[in-house]
Amino acid sequence: MAKGDCIWSNARLATLDPRLAGLGVVEKAAVAVRDGRILFAGPMAELPSETLAGAETIDCEGRWITPGLIDCHTHLVHAGNRAREFEMRLAGASYEEIARAGGGIVSSVSNVRAASEADLVRESLPRLDTLLSEGATTVEIKSGYGLTVEDELKMLRAARTLGSVRDVAIAATYLGAHATPVEYKGRNDAFLREVVLPGLEAAHSEGLVDAVDGFCEGIAFSPDEMRLVFDKARALDLPVKLHADQLSNLHGAELAAGYKAMSADHLEYADEAAAASMANSGTVAVLLPGAFYFIRETRKPPVDLFRKHGTHIALATDCNPGTSPLTSLLLTMNMGATLFGLTVEECIAGVTREAARALGKLNEIGTLEAGKAADLAVWNISEPAELVYRIGFNPLHARIRAGRDATL
Amino acid sequence: MAKGDCIWSNARLATLDPRLAGLGVVEKAAVAVRDGRILFAGPMAELPSETLAGAETIDCEGRWITPGLIDCHTHLVHAGNRAREFEMRLAGASYEEIARAGGGIVSSVSNVRAASEADLVRESLPRLDTLLSEGATTVEIKSGYGLTVEDELKMLRAARTLGSVRDVAIAATYLGAHATPVEYKGRNDAFLREVVLPGLEAAHSEGLVDAVDGFCEGIAFSPDEMRLVFDKARALDLPVKLHADQLSNLHGAELAAGYKAMSADHLEYADEAAAASMANSGTVAVLLPGAFYFIRETRKPPVDLFRKHGTHIALATDCNPGTSPLTSLLLTMNMGATLFGLTVEECIAGVTREAARALGKLNEIGTLEAGKAADLAVWNISEPAELVYRIGFNPLHARIRAGRDATL
Ligand SMILES: [Zn+2]
Ligand SMILES: [Zn+2]
Repeated sequence: MAKGDCIWSNARLATLDPRLAGLGVVEKAAVAVRDGRILFAGPMAELPSETLAGAETIDCEGRWITPGLIDCHTHLVHAGNRAREFEMRLAGASYEEIARAGGGIVSSVSNVRAASEADLVRESLPRLDTLLSEGATTVEIKSGYGLTVEDELKMLRAARTLGSVRDVAIAATYLGAHATPVEYKGRNDAFLREVVLPGLEAAHSEGLVDAVDGFCEGIAFSPDEMRLVFDKARALDLPVKLHADQLSNLHGAELAAGYKAMSADHLEYADEAAAASMANSGTVAVLLPGAFYFIRETRKPPVDLFRKHGTHIALATDCNPGTSPLTSLLLTMNMGATLFGLTVEECIAGVTREAARALGKLNEIGTLEAGKAADLAVWNISEPAELVYRIGFNPLHARIRAGRDATL
Repeated sequence: MAKGDCIWSNARLATLDPRLAGLGVVEKAAVAVRDGRILFAGPMAELPSETLAGAETIDCEGRWITPGLIDCHTHLVHAGNRAREFEMRLAGASYEEIARAGGGIVSSVSNVRAASEADLVRESLPRLDTLLSEGATTVEIKSGYGLTVEDELKMLRAARTLGSVRDVAIAATYLGAHATPVEYKGRNDAFLREVVLPGLEAAHSEGLVDAVDGFCEGIAFSPDEMRLVFDKARALDLPVKLHADQLSNLHGAELAAGYKAMSADHLEYADEAAAASMANSGTVAVLLPGAFYFIRETRKPPVDLFRKHGTHIALATDCNPGTSPLTSLLLTMNMGATLFGLTVEECIAGVTREAARALGKLNEIGTLEAGKAADLAVWNISEPAELVYRIGFNPLHARIRAGRDATL
């Protein structure tokens, strides 16, 4: 092997290789890496002999290796927090009182507008670092609190900058259609035509957009309004995804599937037609138990229908200041199991292979297979179920990003 | 001041001083420490001038200081984990299938019996370190998985050892009456007379017992059986506490109050008579939202009744392998708010002042008041509510134990 090549030996792998059953476990295994990519992941006994010479070897002492974790739905770039609002709500304040006190998404929008790109990076970095400390190697980040062309671009630039100051892949999502700002209240159509669509073009021409998202809900944008955004995305050849059917069933998931969306997210109110159409279009169901927990939702996403139809299920933090101030994929897995009844295998696949699929990056990341990026998480655990079972405990031993040890 | 004296200046304090309203907030404040004790905690302008000379001064740059956190109910010393059981349950296994596969508390008992004291310390240390990494300075630890005299002593010795290998105060609780081991199945009385009571005497004579606890429940010990244990504790002049009314209402909380217990814990099924009698006896209601969450309980403890009667409320992790594999007091606070509707003030008081009260240590710890141990947590937050609001994020800046920086 060439200089810089590396073998993680004496490990146990949860490869998530779809050709293997379950988690794709391989015991007494090794991962060989060249030029930041996986050359081999499998039994040590089958390690190609030519890979052995000259490579640095790291003895994992029987530790488990999974693919690096992937958070496929976050609003991690934001300014300020909504702790005061949380406190008021617990003390019995009504939504009106909170709004009068300047709470709600309006406060996040003002904070982001008032912040510089550097402010956004500085404020968001501790959140990103927390995800990385648990083995994340890819994080999706959405815009959506700027709601002017310039402020949306600022958020996306901050997201890109985070990917340059830390060893992590950032997937940037344009979410201009997140909420209607006060200056456009009652004029969604004008907001879409004057801000969201031009903003998308501008962001795309600056190379800031990996995908296009929207919030389809009674309190946000209608299916017809979302079509406007998705048609523009299609014209720009950008993949789409959608916040769908979180608080009511507007058939957002079916709309998304009709556009062959990479994912539809939340889905508490999605129905069987949604599950079937998503399975058919390859649209991943991204479940967000942190938001379900934080807003004390009681209706669960239809996990059994997703299973029945073979809809892929991913899990993400939804990290955001208003409804999911959550920065832990380990906790997200525990919540997926405890609150939604997902199995251990579904939870681990949900933050690796299926999260990669939800980002359209399954060819590149999400499993331990030759040819993919060498993004690995090495764990001090005796079995994979421990990753899901524990609450508020981080057993990460090392985080490997593109073949390099990038443990914080 | 003498050498070793120290002033944390330019801070904002949540003193939890009961003479002040709410969290006892003091802005532009300082904490002066001598010989490991708080000499002064209050406005910088009122800092006694004689404390200024010669003391080392640490500029907190406006950070918040709270009392060091206190976890007043844990089973942190144990061996092995129950991740496999968790996985089986999610995959649809029945309790019988899990028991046949060796799961349940029986597995924790066998693991503890098979472990040496050193094994217990080694396995438990990462859990303790996780609590300390979030600012804990006092941790209660129970026996209860040994269930022989020698194995109960071994657990308590391991708990004491943890307090010597880390800079933390350990409160050791004898919980011989936790469960009936298989060899005594159906013979609770014999188990109590042959193991629990002699074990308590032996542990006490070795100085291993700070308090005596039991599990009063249909699946564990009856109120009459608990009286046997509590009478022995009284004879030894040891304070008591009780796992009460978690799964049904056996009036365990009232029983505990009758013995002037320091706390009654869990309390999902406690009623108004319980709340009133606890308020009357000064017995703290220790709520354990991690267990509520993990076992998917739906009945909440009667928080409104505790408020009505002035029953003190504390919060703890209940860290244990079977029903609450939780090692975060920050998350415990979030769960207290989100799942039980506690206010921010109740949550923060619940892991500081009220947790100290639940351990009978309010004279020593739990608030920032002159004369108490200088156990402090310094936080990178802009307001105390952030400690409760965030999920899976640790803003600890420094952990001070007995006046010394003991940040891990
Ligand atoms: Zn979202
Ligand atoms: Zn307990």
